[in-house]
Amino acid sequence: MKRTSRDIRTANRYEVLRQIIARSPTSRQELASATGLSLATVATLVGELLDLRMITEVGFEDSAGGRPRGLVAVNAAGGALIGVDIAETYVHVELFDLALNVLARAEEDIRPGESRPEQVIDHVAAAVGSVVAQAGVEAARVLGVGVSVPGQVDRATGIAEYAPNWNWHDVPLLDLLSEHIAYPLHLDNPLRACAVAELWFGAARGHEDAVVVNLGTGVGAGLVLGGGLHRGVSNSAGEWGHTTLVLDGRLCHCGNHGCVETYVGAPGIMRNLRELDPRSPLLHPEDQTATVDALARGVAEGDPVAVKVVRDTARYLAAGIADLVNLLNPEVVVLSSWVAARLGEPLLDEVREAVARHALRRPLAATEIVLSPIPTDPVCLGAATFALEGALQSVGQRAAQRVVSGKGRTAPTA
Amino acid sequence: MKRTSRDIRTANRYEVLRQIIARSPTSRQELASATGLSLATVATLVGELLDLRMITEVGFEDSAGGRPRGLVAVNAAGGALIGVDIAETYVHVELFDLALNVLARAEEDIRPGESRPEQVIDHVAAAVGSVVAQAGVEAARVLGVGVSVPGQVDRATGIAEYAPNWNWHDVPLLDLLSEHIAYPLHLDNPLRACAVAELWFGAARGHEDAVVVNLGTGVGAGLVLGGGLHRGVSNSAGEWGHTTLVLDGRLCHCGNHGCVETYVGAPGIMRNLRELDPRSPLLHPEDQTATVDALARGVAEGDPVAVKVVRDTARYLAAGIADLVNLLNPEVVVLSSWVAARLGEPLLDEVREAVARHALRRPLAATEIVLSPIPTDPVCLGAATFALEGALQSVGQRAAQRVVSGKGRTAPTA
Ligand SMILES: [Zn+2]
Ligand SMILES: [Zn+2]
Repeated sequence: MKRTSRDIRTANRYEVLRQIIARSPTSRQELASATGLSLATVATLVGELLDLRMITEVGFEDSAGGRPRGLVAVNAAGGALIGVDIAETYVHVELFDLALNVLARAEEDIRPGESRPEQVIDHVAAAVGSVVAQAGVEAARVLGVGVSVPGQVDRATGIAEYAPNWNWHDVPLLDLLSEHIAYPLHLDNPLRACAVAELWFGAARGHEDAVVVNLGTGVGAGLVLGGGLHRGVSNSAGEWGHTTLVLDGRLCHCGNHGCVETYVGAPGIMRNLRELDPRSPLLHPEDQTATVDALARGVAEGDPVAVKVVRDTARYLAAGIADLVNLLNPEVVVLSSWVAARLGEPLLDEVREAVARHALRRPLAATEIVLSPIPTDPVCLGAATFALEGALQSVGQRAAQRVVSGKGRTAPTA
Repeated sequence: MKRTSRDIRTANRYEVLRQIIARSPTSRQELASATGLSLATVATLVGELLDLRMITEVGFEDSAGGRPRGLVAVNAAGGALIGVDIAETYVHVELFDLALNVLARAEEDIRPGESRPEQVIDHVAAAVGSVVAQAGVEAARVLGVGVSVPGQVDRATGIAEYAPNWNWHDVPLLDLLSEHIAYPLHLDNPLRACAVAELWFGAARGHEDAVVVNLGTGVGAGLVLGGGLHRGVSNSAGEWGHTTLVLDGRLCHCGNHGCVETYVGAPGIMRNLRELDPRSPLLHPEDQTATVDALARGVAEGDPVAVKVVRDTARYLAAGIADLVNLLNPEVVVLSSWVAARLGEPLLDEVREAVARHALRRPLAATEIVLSPIPTDPVCLGAATFALEGALQSVGQRAAQRVVSGKGRTAPTA
């Protein structure tokens, strides 16, 4: 499995567009210095993005003594991207312009007992139809749809291999979705969606090594290593939720005992609460969201049980995060997804304090722990980013074909 | 901390030399297809290595119908490299030719109470002097000395920041060594030395993602990710030995409780034995090596206590390895260093079986667990490889300077 020149070109193409989105308007010279790529490489990649109308020329800036420099900016209206966040209890869909502004949103609840693939797909199809209608974009402008589904997925085949909370096995999700949705579809899971959202638009931007800890019903750690998403050999890297924190501890649905997820995922937090006070009014036995909300309110009001549960959860979480710090030595650890968003600063403060007790001095000194700065659903944003990456990759393939078909001519066609 | 074009050129230079060492003799065309680099890039890098006399032209091979292709091979006699493995109980030093064949060896014991930096440095200086004298190489041909010391090190400054088993803090090791050794010195630690040895010459060669589990007195996991060594932001990645396996478990010298190292490092294995049978004749209370050797012999002879201790140790080890498999999704996990070498196949068999019970199906299916195939001390080999990488990096810097100084001329100087 060697990284090829094409992989490197694709990574460079992502990096240039990422910098254009972050800096619009910007010059090729500024892009070269921000990316470390040569001016010639940047000029080629900018040319491809202009051809595609993903970016536009927007004028010139003076350069000290030299020729005026051409400026480019992302062409927000050049296309639309859709991100689908399929979670255990809901489907969120958002439609974005190319600057990744949200143009439309739709949400469907998944009720207990509604988790068969056909039922979930009906919800997705309805929500995708809704955002396209709301935004009034032409179908031709939708460049792609990124779909995030919990568990282990095979990106290449579009199969949801294992979704533990629903007991899905080998569901051909993209094939089934393609009967309802005519745009290019891209499948991945929430932990990688959150990581790519932070890498393009959040706290991991500009970092070589970052860990995005995803706290929801399930738990994972999206890994940004060497400036790109680390997928592993079969696209299943990041299953930190299923690393052992307590040997022979709580039974996990994965079959192992003592997994991180059983202590810090939403059901694990409910269990932390139940073990402390089985009759706590904070506990909503069938409703994770209501329980986590009640804990967040309880902490704000100084409720001692809520404070203790958040502290216990933070202690488990911190031991697991210290493992990531010691093993990977990242610049930043980002707490993402709905549980992190709802428990917020009080959880962050406890986690920082406890990580400092667990981690080694040298990697601890090099890392900071932050809450995700992304104000909208990071999974939708990340899923839309996968669609954007997919669109850029297909450009690369077309560009490569053009070069091949131009072989042997004295001048390649433009 | 962005990866620059120079970093990419350095990585490409490593990869080309790695392939030449593995395939000598080989052609530029074969190198291009093995590395995924363009033929032009390969030709430039081969030219640099030829200029340096690290490789030589060795003839031609016919290509079907085309011009005969020039062949290159590593120039074994083009230089010498020294690897220094400073461990808790010994110093091993090996001198290599450029094909990384061992030309000479020296070993010094470090007795309890001899662990002050000056004492250790005297041993290193004596052993380095010995291998140079034995091999009879001219001093000018020694391209560099790689030094591995346990614990956390700052490569840039050559400081051993923290060596837990000796309680060293901020020892300026390379400065002290340079008073005795006149060759270029490169500092790193055993877990990264073992990883780079596997990457260049062992079971990680040709893999994008591999984990090298280092089992000695200390324990760590060298990470090969994206085809190169993952160092992290402050060169301390890989401290898997200090990730939590048993929350609130055994006290570790790092201050944390329940670290992997306290269960599977040599002192941890002695404790596993002591907890099972405090008066076992297998136990040599002051001698880790003798105890591990006695366990290996006991397993071979079917001694039930030895079998149980290795099984218990394998179970701890497997839970920790399953964490690495789930988190990183590597193609291969390599068991390296002296404890793994001595316990060998019986340990490997138990570990494979137990990892299969702990890990998730998808990453498990993609990974294999093997013993290191490197027949000599992998830490010496890896340390020598750091010296080789250092020599290649200084080439890159000279090449870059040449380009800068040649700027504005019509033809650059050769
Ligand atoms: Zn689990
Ligand atoms: Zn420790």
